Amino acid sequence: MSLSAFDHPILSAMLGDPEIAALFSVEAEIGALLRFERALAEVQAGLGLIPGEAADGIARAIEGFVPDIAALARGAARDGVVIPALLVQLRERLEPRHRQWLHWGATSQDAIDTGLVLRLKPALAHLDARLGAVIAALETLERRFGARPIMGRTRMQDALPIPAGHRIAAWRGPLERLSERLPAIGQAVLRVQLGGPVGTLESAGGKAEALRQGLAGALDLKASPRSWQAERDGLVGLALWLAEVSASLGKLGQDMALMALDGSLAIAGGGGSSAMAHKANPVRAELLVSLARYNGALAPAMLAAMTNEFERSGATWTLEWLTLPQMLATTGGGLRLAGELVGQVTRIGTEGERDDG
Amino acid sequence: MSLSAFDHPILSAMLGDPEIAALFSVEAEIGALLRFERALAEVQAGLGLIPGEAADGIARAIEGFVPDIAALARGAARDGVVIPALLVQLRERLEPRHRQWLHWGATSQDAIDTGLVLRLKPALAHLDARLGAVIAALETLERRFGARPIMGRTRMQDALPIPAGHRIAAWRGPLERLSERLPAIGQAVLRVQLGGPVGTLESAGGKAEALRQGLAGALDLKASPRSWQAERDGLVGLALWLAEVSASLGKLGQDMALMALDGSLAIAGGGGSSAMAHKANPVRAELLVSLARYNGALAPAMLAAMTNEFERSGATWTLEWLTLPQMLATTGGGLRLAGELVGQVTRIGTEGERDDG
Amino acid sequence: MSLSAFDHPILSAMLGDPEIAALFSVEAEIGALLRFERALAEVQAGLGLIPGEAADGIARAIEGFVPDIAALARGAARDGVVIPALLVQLRERLEPRHRQWLHWGATSQDAIDTGLVLRLKPALAHLDARLGAVIAALETLERRFGARPIMGRTRMQDALPIPAGHRIAAWRGPLERLSERLPAIGQAVLRVQLGGPVGTLESAGGKAEALRQGLAGALDLKASPRSWQAERDGLVGLALWLAEVSASLGKLGQDMALMALDGSLAIAGGGGSSAMAHKANPVRAELLVSLARYNGALAPAMLAAMTNEFERSGATWTLEWLTLPQMLATTGGGLRLAGELVGQVTRIGTEGERDDG
Amino acid sequence: MSLSAFDHPILSAMLGDPEIAALFSVEAEIGALLRFERALAEVQAGLGLIPGEAADGIARAIEGFVPDIAALARGAARDGVVIPALLVQLRERLEPRHRQWLHWGATSQDAIDTGLVLRLKPALAHLDARLGAVIAALETLERRFGARPIMGRTRMQDALPIPAGHRIAAWRGPLERLSERLPAIGQAVLRVQLGGPVGTLESAGGKAEALRQGLAGALDLKASPRSWQAERDGLVGLALWLAEVSASLGKLGQDMALMALDGSLAIAGGGGSSAMAHKANPVRAELLVSLARYNGALAPAMLAAMTNEFERSGATWTLEWLTLPQMLATTGGGLRLAGELVGQVTRIGTEGERDDG
Repeated sequence: MSLSAFDHPILSAMLGDPEIAALFSVEAEIGALLRFERALAEVQAGLGLIPGEAADGIARAIEGFVPDIAALARGAARDGVVIPALLVQLRERLEPRHRQWLHWGATSQDAIDTGLVLRLKPALAHLDARLGAVIAALETLERRFGARPIMGRTRMQDALPIPAGHRIAAWRGPLERLSERLPAIGQAVLRVQLGGPVGTLESAGGKAEALRQGLAGALDLKASPRSWQAERDGLVGLALWLAEVSASLGKLGQDMALMALDGSLAIAGGGGSSAMAHKANPVRAELLVSLARYNGALAPAMLAAMTNEFERSGATWTLEWLTLPQMLATTGGGLRLAGELVGQVTRIGTEGERDDG
Repeated sequence: MSLSAFDHPILSAMLGDPEIAALFSVEAEIGALLRFERALAEVQAGLGLIPGEAADGIARAIEGFVPDIAALARGAARDGVVIPALLVQLRERLEPRHRQWLHWGATSQDAIDTGLVLRLKPALAHLDARLGAVIAALETLERRFGARPIMGRTRMQDALPIPAGHRIAAWRGPLERLSERLPAIGQAVLRVQLGGPVGTLESAGGKAEALRQGLAGALDLKASPRSWQAERDGLVGLALWLAEVSASLGKLGQDMALMALDGSLAIAGGGGSSAMAHKANPVRAELLVSLARYNGALAPAMLAAMTNEFERSGATWTLEWLTLPQMLATTGGGLRLAGELVGQVTRIGTEGERDDG
Repeated sequence: MSLSAFDHPILSAMLGDPEIAALFSVEAEIGALLRFERALAEVQAGLGLIPGEAADGIARAIEGFVPDIAALARGAARDGVVIPALLVQLRERLEPRHRQWLHWGATSQDAIDTGLVLRLKPALAHLDARLGAVIAALETLERRFGARPIMGRTRMQDALPIPAGHRIAAWRGPLERLSERLPAIGQAVLRVQLGGPVGTLESAGGKAEALRQGLAGALDLKASPRSWQAERDGLVGLALWLAEVSASLGKLGQDMALMALDGSLAIAGGGGSSAMAHKANPVRAELLVSLARYNGALAPAMLAAMTNEFERSGATWTLEWLTLPQMLATTGGGLRLAGELVGQVTRIGTEGERDDG
Repeated sequence: MSLSAFDHPILSAMLGDPEIAALFSVEAEIGALLRFERALAEVQAGLGLIPGEAADGIARAIEGFVPDIAALARGAARDGVVIPALLVQLRERLEPRHRQWLHWGATSQDAIDTGLVLRLKPALAHLDARLGAVIAALETLERRFGARPIMGRTRMQDALPIPAGHRIAAWRGPLERLSERLPAIGQAVLRVQLGGPVGTLESAGGKAEALRQGLAGALDLKASPRSWQAERDGLVGLALWLAEVSASLGKLGQDMALMALDGSLAIAGGGGSSAMAHKANPVRAELLVSLARYNGALAPAMLAAMTNEFERSGATWTLEWLTLPQMLATTGGGLRLAGELVGQVTRIGTEGERDDG
């Protein structure tokens, strides 16, 4: 199925980011859920909340587990979340006396949200690296062509000549500041979710704090003072950051597409046309504009997730699932395209001049 | 890859519509492109624009053609559209003297847009059937429970009792009117796109009109007085209709979820919880709200497609590809869920009363 | 106060539409509410639902009534709607025995929604006239310059020459079809809302239908088979039409701004710069792009109004008030600007040539 | 005119924030523009860039200047920005030999953007105070009612009892974190814009840096390493923060409206109905939901401002003017309403119990 361009065997090569796609495959998702369940049991056993041999049994059951995806799909369609069906499959691999200790005291949201965060962590590191590469490529571009005069333009009209470096700096500046903001975004969102049915983690009694801290340590995440199931600002902050990165790349793409039109920028290996052999289309530049608008459109759907009802909203939680992975792919794809596009530039400034790099 | 919930092996069972998914598989997409290329050659041959034996050769080359998807993906990543790479593969199957007649006088957009419309046609018929089924199910609901008193509510507070039929009619009314509007939506969008490189279809000379009419006839579509490559109101009108259907279903879902909370509505087979065995969650009702908000968010991205530049905008065209298939899936999935949800209702009105329907 | 550009004493001259602004002044709004209350009483008296002399008294009380706006504002802040406070002021002007017959059997939403529709009717006629004028101006443009060759452009790059008329037709086509759709939009939305507290209009007993028909006749609107307070598809359909018109004008503006940049279009009287005397900025063209994006952003807020709760949602109703008047102003302002912009065009096609039209 | 609810004499009392409205009145706007022009001249004189007596003349001309608003409106409609017309009026008050030194080396955007920032500074301080008051009110609420049991709810259904304090903490948490992020938001945005026609500030020669620093000092703002006219991330970051605050308040409103429905929360002085005397509508709670959705819808319009073209985009700059003041008002109004709403709460938890706080 290919309802999303990012999952489309052809369009994903044009628009997507393979590393983000791998982190959001169903295999990676289930892997993260299993990692949560296993670590939960181990930390609970360490705290004496569940028997140690139950935790061992759970670890063994998870080892080598191959899910029945069709059964998970049927379960998710019924329950609105995959966890109950996943637990059924896992419990079949457990001795009966251990079954109650799997997912003990936890709820679906604990597994799903923590499983998401486990994949967001490498995703953010990956986006950070991509962002750094684009910034570095723009610095190189500035060194090569920054002193060349180009026509400055305001309100879509020729204004006065400027050094190309001035425009390149305006592409780079917001990306640098977005890069500087990423650690705080990560601090806010890369936190274990653990609250039990209604978020109060009552099952752990006086050991709730120790359990949350222990689980965070085991999963190399941060803890939070309480479960964040109804406090989605961490995720929303990330989503808005993703949209901002895409919007910044949109300016780069739009400027470059317009500069290719007037000849003040040359790109190696532009896209071909099925009808006009002479064309070299600034395809990547245009795609950056598409992705900027797409991520901008998705942003309000994530904002709506903050307006969830009570202790858990199925409506807004599902809305996050519809939205956030695509926002990550949109930003990852845009950063990939931007890096390639900047690397394709062979000239900025007056046509006819040659670059001696 | 599962960046979209609609392409996710598990979440698609919860949120998606298998018929829409099939129409937007890559196989269906390439099939529609091939259907366009073949019909184009045949109609052109009939009008004497290309040799008849070239058209025969093209038909044979298309018969049994198995695309090299990886090569198509590489081509699309370079060109921003799959057609040039697809033509390379097809031309390898043609005798050299016939190669120039494949896709003759056409451009990528002619194939892609017409290929889209060829799939929109069954998609609209399918959505119409789903919509009719939901309307019929609501009529049944009204017959069964319409006379029961329920508490009318305004501004989220109890107001005065009303017959349940009054509320059910408010769910049904907009859907009926949306259904009545669908034929005109289809009339506007189910049209052959054929314009050549810049939309003027110059290659066909004085036969441009006959070619467009002939192709429309061969593909069982409508023609339009000129190519619509830069006039996207047909597609946008469809997209907004899809968002309106989803928004209407969102009200049904929201009302039903709230009615399940206060006990004035009972649903058979609600979703289970991983932590609380006593719960029967109105999962489908919540999902209708998620899908309403998601399609609402996507609507501006399609509106942006109307603000395209010049004769063909790569930026907004790609934005349509990112958006429209998911909007169809969102509406299709919502209609499926609504039909199931309404069918699950076992009681509306005072708890304790029994339905004798 | 000037939080909206459309209400700003300076920016409204740049962006707004004075006729739309007049229809949405507070004076026009209260005038429409009073017209509703008076017609309601008169029709109810005619049907014997209230005493004839009460209707006469109500008519006299409304005649010459000058509202205390500050008191209305205090009331609206408390009640979430202005009607209760307005009724207090009106009832002070009535003999005590007539007071109960004012607004008899009606609810705030009946007055507010019908009062809105009473102003939408001239607003739609006005937008229709503006739209017709833009279409006519584009026809004139096509006659004057349609045969001139301009460079056709695809994917932001030069492609092949086309007659200017081909591009002008792509500006005009969607506007023509939007104009053709307007009567059906009006049919759907220009309907009396009358339902009483929970929409069932019980107060009128067996005369509910006659009352609704009578009121529609008195106000020169259509009736609907039941109150539409929870069925907002009429309003939403209008809002989406407004956004589509703006998006179509956005293409006109974007193309023209880019054509001014490359010299293939000349505009008389472009805007001046505070820093560069030589500039003639295509200000109106740019503003059409701004307005297109703005109306596109507002569209989902109106779609959300379809997902209202129960018999009356204060949350989504207020959201309509925040959104719809501005959408009307955005479209009205855009149509004004487009008419002026097209009228400013002095040349399309190769620079240096002169128009002899 | 009242096209925006925030400029409406009645609705603004319901939805708006008078302090934000005052900061965005046309008087405050022109005052900030004049403050910019005067400080610019004074700092330029101090650096020897313009004659000292010209700066004195400019200061005197600005003192007591009363703008001709109608003429400003005509100028803005022509130029797309008010500055050229404003300079004409100011220059009439200057001796001819001083006229060239007014606005010397600057461009419209320098004045408009810096004038905006001059008003954003008190606006952010004001919003911070409002936010602090809401947080404090929620702390009070938690102290009074936090230990009371309420029914925890997940997926819109009863789950298990929780202490009310758990839910209240979920309202407060995101607001606290948003409050902590505000200083960095301010740091990014409260910066002088000064770049001259194309952003390079060439007129100041080697004194550009000193001029920017001096102006920042005079206006009590920060400087930035270069003009930010094409780098809008500061403004966009603020806009997204505003939308996040509104979205967080939306949850508070939605939860409270639903709790009022089931009786687990009591509010003093709810809104009255024109038809049902027994109702006490949780009007402010509903309005928080409206405002959350409205600000969410506006967010993409501000994101689009990052995708501006070249050195100054009239299209996206105007889009900011349409959007940002309303976003400030939406957040300010929401914070006001939230403070009032929380203050209205007389009971959380089981009906019948009494609060002894």
